[in-house]
Amino acid sequence: MQHLSDGTVTSPQGFLAAAVPAEIKYKNRNDLTLIVSETDCAATAVFTRSQVVAAPVIADRDTLARNTTSIRAVVINSGNANASTGKPGLTNARLTQGLAAKELGCHSDQILVMSTGVIGVPLPIDKVADGITLAVPQLSAENGRSAAEAIMTTDTVAKHLAVQAELSGGMVTIGGMAKGSGMIHPDMATMLSLITTDAVVPPDVLKSLLKTAVNQSFNRISVDGDTSTNDTVLLLANGASGVAIDNHDDAEAFSEALNVLTRELATRIVKDGEGATKFVEIQVSGAKTSANAHTIANTIATSPLVKTAFAGSDANWGRILAAAGRAGIPFDQYKVDLWIGIEQPDELQLVNQGTPTDYEEADAAAIFAQSAFIISLQLSEGNESDTVWTCDLSHDYVSINADYRT
Amino acid sequence: MQHLSDGTVTSPQGFLAAAVPAEIKYKNRNDLTLIVSETDCAATAVFTRSQVVAAPVIADRDTLARNTTSIRAVVINSGNANASTGKPGLTNARLTQGLAAKELGCHSDQILVMSTGVIGVPLPIDKVADGITLAVPQLSAENGRSAAEAIMTTDTVAKHLAVQAELSGGMVTIGGMAKGSGMIHPDMATMLSLITTDAVVPPDVLKSLLKTAVNQSFNRISVDGDTSTNDTVLLLANGASGVAIDNHDDAEAFSEALNVLTRELATRIVKDGEGATKFVEIQVSGAKTSANAHTIANTIATSPLVKTAFAGSDANWGRILAAAGRAGIPFDQYKVDLWIGIEQPDELQLVNQGTPTDYEEADAAAIFAQSAFIISLQLSEGNESDTVWTCDLSHDYVSINADYRT
Repeated sequence: MQHLSDGTVTSPQGFLAAAVPAEIKYKNRNDLTLIVSETDCAATAVFTRSQVVAAPVIADRDTLARNTTSIRAVVINSGNANASTGKPGLTNARLTQGLAAKELGCHSDQILVMSTGVIGVPLPIDKVADGITLAVPQLSAENGRSAAEAIMTTDTVAKHLAVQAELSGGMVTIGGMAKGSGMIHPDMATMLSLITTDAVVPPDVLKSLLKTAVNQSFNRISVDGDTSTNDTVLLLANGASGVAIDNHDDAEAFSEALNVLTRELATRIVKDGEGATKFVEIQVSGAKTSANAHTIANTIATSPLVKTAFAGSDANWGRILAAAGRAGIPFDQYKVDLWIGIEQPDELQLVNQGTPTDYEEADAAAIFAQSAFIISLQLSEGNESDTVWTCDLSHDYVSINADYRT
Repeated sequence: MQHLSDGTVTSPQGFLAAAVPAEIKYKNRNDLTLIVSETDCAATAVFTRSQVVAAPVIADRDTLARNTTSIRAVVINSGNANASTGKPGLTNARLTQGLAAKELGCHSDQILVMSTGVIGVPLPIDKVADGITLAVPQLSAENGRSAAEAIMTTDTVAKHLAVQAELSGGMVTIGGMAKGSGMIHPDMATMLSLITTDAVVPPDVLKSLLKTAVNQSFNRISVDGDTSTNDTVLLLANGASGVAIDNHDDAEAFSEALNVLTRELATRIVKDGEGATKFVEIQVSGAKTSANAHTIANTIATSPLVKTAFAGSDANWGRILAAAGRAGIPFDQYKVDLWIGIEQPDELQLVNQGTPTDYEEADAAAIFAQSAFIISLQLSEGNESDTVWTCDLSHDYVSINADYRT
């Protein structure tokens, strides 16, 4: 497996992109993106689990219930989430599908849609229509980077890459882009990701591969009940390479490449938190179930008090245990061990059986001062574990909290 | 029922207080508080539901399991939570009970303890011991206000009051104090409250009365799983007035007074959030269970994106629905109504059956610009409801989020 320098969603063969200024909300920047495959794609998606879902999520779920074998294009707008817009919002999402289908000469069930931006404001469908008309003639394999830029909202950097994997039948390419600067706010901002590949992969295999990939990447920066109205990860396979997944080794190689790509995109989302200066891995082990471990890890990872301590390089581990305690998962506080480390999770033990060790504060502070470090909480309640990634929280919030202990 | 001007925990007969500088963490301020009843008290308490509970919570639970009829004193320290301090922390909490018992000439099972401050740092028991010795000679009914000041940590104002109720046998007084500036941070800081009364109330009745009072006050600013390691509400009744609860009317009158007092203390905690300028009531109705309504209301109330919109007087109701959607409670987004108001919850409808109404933005902004207003979310899933109180979130967080929609 190898990384493609400056790769994008148009790195795989047969994918084209165009990004245009539709003035949906922003002025003087591209905010409407069209990604088109020259041939039909197998498609699969993972969506938000919120009870309040945006119209494009409903439209895509409906579309993918009918068609996972001949998707041709994705229309993505930034500046308006088309969420909490009622039935008219759903009509607008479906109108977008219809407009793109008409321009591209295909059926509306071959079009998927994604939106990100403000909630509760009607999508200006006329501007979307004009944008699509403007975009089609500009479709090009050179526009992958423009596409990654046009889907940004509060993001400070465009997130895109591509990887290649050698299968038994030849080389395949996977390209991806994402937007989101989540985990810096306890409410995760919308996370959108579109992944393309020129491998030949049937929809059911694609679905399984994406589920595995998401569980070890985007789900480590988000969770059930902590998703926005619009969160979507979409994977399209157009088979343009002519190379199929023919055997177990091929499946392994492709899956590894997809996992690396999604993990890298998820990591970049964490690192793009406003003011984020640190990337922190939270490992919880010894839980009765991996879901329990995940819930505890996520409660720690989203705690503003924990995240401000990270920002202040203050090894205020009491806040870590306090966050774990309020996660709603039963455990015995007198069986808990806590370790921290830079390269390995077990470099310095802070808590042994619920009691502080006689570690040196300077040693703990030296680890918390790194730009990346690992927190490992061991519960001794079972054998399951999980990991999430987070960043520090800075700004005025820090000035109130980071110095609390000194 | 009437309010006592500048009332405190020593307003009821037979209660004394002393607050002294023990230098547990702070310099040049009182941080150790002793509250003593001249006679034995019936006692009851409500504690945090966190899995990681501070040593004083464990000590008090144990003590109240053995003795709810002859409590004599409470020792409260600020600056150190004695939480995540392992078994030595529990030893220190029990030593504190023993030290106070010795100084006051009673049994250690007649002493309760409360702590608030930094987590994970050993309680300096020698300083606590010196503080208790220093405090005992200073015990006075004049020190109620000093006590309320000495338990503060991040609080900006001392919170104390007293109310009186006329029972069939005569007048009784209830005094209370609290510390906490919760709900401004999604992690609630420690909330401690001590309530005293000179009414004659048996422990089982006291327990029931406190449960009712807490459910309509402190539990509206906190929830299961969102509590700190130390949260405690303690109610002591020394019977010094000689007036008992003799009949149903007496019970009603006493309960009403206790409810008013606890509601006022809880309200003051919300209003004391750093930088808080608004007091917002979140009503959720039409839920299948009141627990569901509470979960949704609390998710809205703790959402930083919602709270920054409050601060910016931006009626960005999409964030309210988005927060409701990720609360983990199933509901149909196309059956949701949303109303806002200043005096009444139903003054202006923003959302009807999941679809924005044609309300005037200026009317919505005028309500959000008030220092107090009401949000009412109606689910149409059932007949249960619940209410929580919250405040706005200001500081730099606002500069990032409050202008997002404009």
